[in-house]
Amino acid sequence: MLRIGLLGAGRIGRVHAQAIAAHSQSQLCAVSDAIPDAAESLAAEQGATARDSMEIIADPSIDAVLIATPTDTHSGLIEAATRAGKAVLCEKPVDLNLERALACQSVAAETGQPVMVGFNRRFDPSFSTLKSAADRGEIGTPEMLSITSFDPAPPPVSYIKVSGGLFRDMMIHDFDMANYLMGQLPEQILAVGTSIVDPDIGRAGDVDTAVVTMTYENGQIAVIKNSRRAAYGYDQRIEVLGSGGLLQVHNILENAVVKSTADGVTGAKPTYFFLERYMPAYRAEWDAFVQAVQSGSAMPVTLKDGVAALAMAEAATRSAQTGKPVAMTDVLKPVAK
Amino acid sequence: MLRIGLLGAGRIGRVHAQAIAAHSQSQLCAVSDAIPDAAESLAAEQGATARDSMEIIADPSIDAVLIATPTDTHSGLIEAATRAGKAVLCEKPVDLNLERALACQSVAAETGQPVMVGFNRRFDPSFSTLKSAADRGEIGTPEMLSITSFDPAPPPVSYIKVSGGLFRDMMIHDFDMANYLMGQLPEQILAVGTSIVDPDIGRAGDVDTAVVTMTYENGQIAVIKNSRRAAYGYDQRIEVLGSGGLLQVHNILENAVVKSTADGVTGAKPTYFFLERYMPAYRAEWDAFVQAVQSGSAMPVTLKDGVAALAMAEAATRSAQTGKPVAMTDVLKPVAK
Amino acid sequence: MLRIGLLGAGRIGRVHAQAIAAHSQSQLCAVSDAIPDAAESLAAEQGATARDSMEIIADPSIDAVLIATPTDTHSGLIEAATRAGKAVLCEKPVDLNLERALACQSVAAETGQPVMVGFNRRFDPSFSTLKSAADRGEIGTPEMLSITSFDPAPPPVSYIKVSGGLFRDMMIHDFDMANYLMGQLPEQILAVGTSIVDPDIGRAGDVDTAVVTMTYENGQIAVIKNSRRAAYGYDQRIEVLGSGGLLQVHNILENAVVKSTADGVTGAKPTYFFLERYMPAYRAEWDAFVQAVQSGSAMPVTLKDGVAALAMAEAATRSAQTGKPVAMTDVLKPVAK
Amino acid sequence: MLRIGLLGAGRIGRVHAQAIAAHSQSQLCAVSDAIPDAAESLAAEQGATARDSMEIIADPSIDAVLIATPTDTHSGLIEAATRAGKAVLCEKPVDLNLERALACQSVAAETGQPVMVGFNRRFDPSFSTLKSAADRGEIGTPEMLSITSFDPAPPPVSYIKVSGGLFRDMMIHDFDMANYLMGQLPEQILAVGTSIVDPDIGRAGDVDTAVVTMTYENGQIAVIKNSRRAAYGYDQRIEVLGSGGLLQVHNILENAVVKSTADGVTGAKPTYFFLERYMPAYRAEWDAFVQAVQSGSAMPVTLKDGVAALAMAEAATRSAQTGKPVAMTDVLKPVAK
Repeated sequence: MLRIGLLGAGRIGRVHAQAIAAHSQSQLCAVSDAIPDAAESLAAEQGATARDSMEIIADPSIDAVLIATPTDTHSGLIEAATRAGKAVLCEKPVDLNLERALACQSVAAETGQPVMVGFNRRFDPSFSTLKSAADRGEIGTPEMLSITSFDPAPPPVSYIKVSGGLFRDMMIHDFDMANYLMGQLPEQILAVGTSIVDPDIGRAGDVDTAVVTMTYENGQIAVIKNSRRAAYGYDQRIEVLGSGGLLQVHNILENAVVKSTADGVTGAKPTYFFLERYMPAYRAEWDAFVQAVQSGSAMPVTLKDGVAALAMAEAATRSAQTGKPVAMTDVLKPVAK
Repeated sequence: MLRIGLLGAGRIGRVHAQAIAAHSQSQLCAVSDAIPDAAESLAAEQGATARDSMEIIADPSIDAVLIATPTDTHSGLIEAATRAGKAVLCEKPVDLNLERALACQSVAAETGQPVMVGFNRRFDPSFSTLKSAADRGEIGTPEMLSITSFDPAPPPVSYIKVSGGLFRDMMIHDFDMANYLMGQLPEQILAVGTSIVDPDIGRAGDVDTAVVTMTYENGQIAVIKNSRRAAYGYDQRIEVLGSGGLLQVHNILENAVVKSTADGVTGAKPTYFFLERYMPAYRAEWDAFVQAVQSGSAMPVTLKDGVAALAMAEAATRSAQTGKPVAMTDVLKPVAK
Repeated sequence: MLRIGLLGAGRIGRVHAQAIAAHSQSQLCAVSDAIPDAAESLAAEQGATARDSMEIIADPSIDAVLIATPTDTHSGLIEAATRAGKAVLCEKPVDLNLERALACQSVAAETGQPVMVGFNRRFDPSFSTLKSAADRGEIGTPEMLSITSFDPAPPPVSYIKVSGGLFRDMMIHDFDMANYLMGQLPEQILAVGTSIVDPDIGRAGDVDTAVVTMTYENGQIAVIKNSRRAAYGYDQRIEVLGSGGLLQVHNILENAVVKSTADGVTGAKPTYFFLERYMPAYRAEWDAFVQAVQSGSAMPVTLKDGVAALAMAEAATRSAQTGKPVAMTDVLKPVAK
Repeated sequence: MLRIGLLGAGRIGRVHAQAIAAHSQSQLCAVSDAIPDAAESLAAEQGATARDSMEIIADPSIDAVLIATPTDTHSGLIEAATRAGKAVLCEKPVDLNLERALACQSVAAETGQPVMVGFNRRFDPSFSTLKSAADRGEIGTPEMLSITSFDPAPPPVSYIKVSGGLFRDMMIHDFDMANYLMGQLPEQILAVGTSIVDPDIGRAGDVDTAVVTMTYENGQIAVIKNSRRAAYGYDQRIEVLGSGGLLQVHNILENAVVKSTADGVTGAKPTYFFLERYMPAYRAEWDAFVQAVQSGSAMPVTLKDGVAALAMAEAATRSAQTGKPVAMTDVLKPVAK
């Protein structure tokens, strides 16, 4: 039984709390939050104790911490927790600053503690089924990857301002998905972005609609399309064209009802947002973490994976700003020196 | 080049005229109709001559006649045409009266002339693909057949009164489809019917909504569902459950557009009615007839098939009236004596 | 917090145990089973106590019992539990014997205790969405109901022998679904059944493939198709044709992956069986029970509903054996006298 | 009745010959081809005369010519035919050379004769339905357009060498579709292309897999994906994300059969290639041309449209070669001076 400290009792922290509680091999022991009431309330519901983050990290009876705090605290908490000998599952992104994330990666590596980054979509049953089918060669050699990833509605501009921008905040999931499915980093990234959904997002210096094209050493191409708004719900589709065919993941619908009338044939919309769409993925993610910690095997998503996705977001941000392609080596070299 | 006389220049006659004209091996030479203007007009359009039916049948330069006249003239015209040495394609049903149809079958058989009955659905590309897949054993041994066949809107009650009733007029297509797919006649037929769509249809002595269950010697079951009204268009679906799986034919849609909004995900309706749905089948039917006549091979749908479907309609009509199952032998024996 | 005793620790008992444990307003306190080890093991997992059924029923600290024991014990346990003042949720069917079930209904009614029968499919999100849409008149007046309900594979013949037969054991769910959707009992039931899937099932006196046609006072028709085997998984589809359109519930698929190759376009199969397909329904069913008990409102599925479905199974069994339609009054009158 | 001369009796010429013959307001009178036998044979089939192209153009009894000759003859024939007072329907592309195409556009404009370019996809019933729905505002303001356009198999490398390259030969259809749907030209074009399908295509200086991103003045984005190979058939999908929803055109399938077995649920593949997929579009295109000529109204696709698509292909070719975005003004200005 793994004894868990949860850092962060916000919306996503609560999702993780449920997954921790529902798992037969993990027990939620302590909860922290910058807002003490939030920690108290979640701790009470789950039979855990509300404590300070550093106290939880220092407690030798805690085996692992799950970091679901604001992004700017991630790197520091990962470093503290790994130095304290904890296994860590940290929400994405590792940091908004690539240099800081790389520094954190070095510290964690020195401690030898296992750190997993919360790219939950890798654990979605449909995406992992697609990955397995592609890896088995069911469509021959993959040639072109397309990811469609639209949120149902944009967040408040106040959030946009501190989010690090669409590429670091939203598309980072899709960058990681591309790395997961392609098994390699792209050579070059080309991004275009506009703020057609909400001009205020543009005034805040961000984009709300973006297309990124990535090219790979062996001639493969990947395209990621993001929009902050899809009136019909959370649109999460993937397709891979290979030499022998096409693999697609369609949207998950709210229900299986179809109505045919003089107006047409109408089915349900996609599930509304990430909590509905990816709840099974959050459960599977936690199970994968618990199993990796208990067996001592490699983390299924590493801190390196988290840094790689961040570097791609950095490249895309620069490309969108300059209108020019950005080589991944140009992003990684300067910080790696 | 087959020289064709078309008897009947109504809606379905015009469909056939197009198929005849479009075929490289057939030529529409003469057209007849009880309404001379109808014959004249169609003949003019197609570069043919308007003539009397009996004159066409008697003309030795005509190789084959296509009978698309009112049902009560079918048997007589089949007899006259086969006696005159013509090959015949006759629209369904052969007759509304089973005894009359059997008599016609005898006459035609004596002449040795080939007669095909116009069960056009056998030539629908999707239905014939299903049939081939089932015959190849792709779902093992068929066990249960289900046919859904709904018209978009009921015909006028004036038509209902002379139609012979839903089982002989509408479901006869589905009876033939069952025979085509099952390769045998049922042992017993159980029908229920109501006039829930339009009470006037009930007052006219007919039903507008019916379900027929048929059982076969080897334990197979077939279900046919008919309604005279489907607000969303012509609903034509078939499925066969076999020991190894399920084969289905879905509806053909008006187009491939799908709209997703806050109200749901809406696609096109099924094609509106039989002309839209089965136009390729009419073409393929005509081609099959021409090929069979030219090669001297067996007709793909025989007069016997037409009589069999009529006998099933007779059995269903009786069952719906009495509330009791009717054995096919009880329908065929008395008339066969 | 509702304190619950679970009678029966078999497969379905375990499903209910999870639902009870996961619900914030219920607590699993005691478990019984004819096999003491089964009760012990489940009780240990859930932090409950293994006890004798009658002891649980007699315990005043237990608020409600969930009966998931073999069918032949249902009526007796319902009677005992309601007499002891418990609220009851009992798995279907109430009994295999219609007279016994009616007697049980009388006893329970006298106690005034709430009894719910576990027709879990009413709580399936897609089926209840269809029901709501039909009730709102989205397809006008319902005219024809079709239920397709195929199991993935037949149970052992040993189970078949004690099951009460396909109509009481399997189609009873569909009878209840028809009652739920149509809001009334049929007037008459017509059943045909064969044992084409497995002749041994026929030799055991049962059928494995059946079609039931039901007619209603106002001219509506319902068709239920059952097969004990669908090679592609659990096939659970419903459609309602109304004066204004069609409502359908399609199958729930294992995942959202689609593969297109030279061999065709292949998607996932339906979820394998009832545990996968109806897990959300079991959760919702339990929640509905807890809410009804706590609020004192009417049970969403009553003992009377359970008896009605059983009476329909009785009628279908007789119809399949005699080949004749059976009026519901003929089934209910003799036992009701 | 429009008297038509068909220049070019190859594969696509034969498709047009059928459309001309099937139309009630047009008559195929003359056919030319560089290979006299090809012209003779098609003319014989259609009851037309085989003649020299220039003779046909000079014949005052011919009302319009349809140009389906090799691309390098298009501009010259358009000029000759319009100077001879003919209405013209010319296959795409206008020319491989943008300056030549612009010169041709000037000549044709001076004659005042109507010229239509054969972008047949605009007449596809599904694409035009999508266009109408978007124009009616059914999904609000369009924000992002995505076109997926994959051929089933690459042409021979010998063809590739004279094709003008993927952007001018294949994607030109998609450029026109983007112009049709967006109602404006992009500001800037970004292309990446590789030869991952067949290295010989790369050695011939072309790409076989490409992604083009286009940005518009008002912040809209369009993405076009092309591949010369899709093992499952001709993949022709479009989607438009708008402020109020999503419009999609799915693939047209070979038939409506679906098979469910233990291996999954398999439907038909997309229709194989453009002749199967776009036959109705060729018919509708011809009808639109005939109607425009007869009514004297504006051509539904103009020579200017043909030149615009060519300019976009030019921009994409440059972008793919340089790795940099190309502004449409940079492509059009130098040639427009």
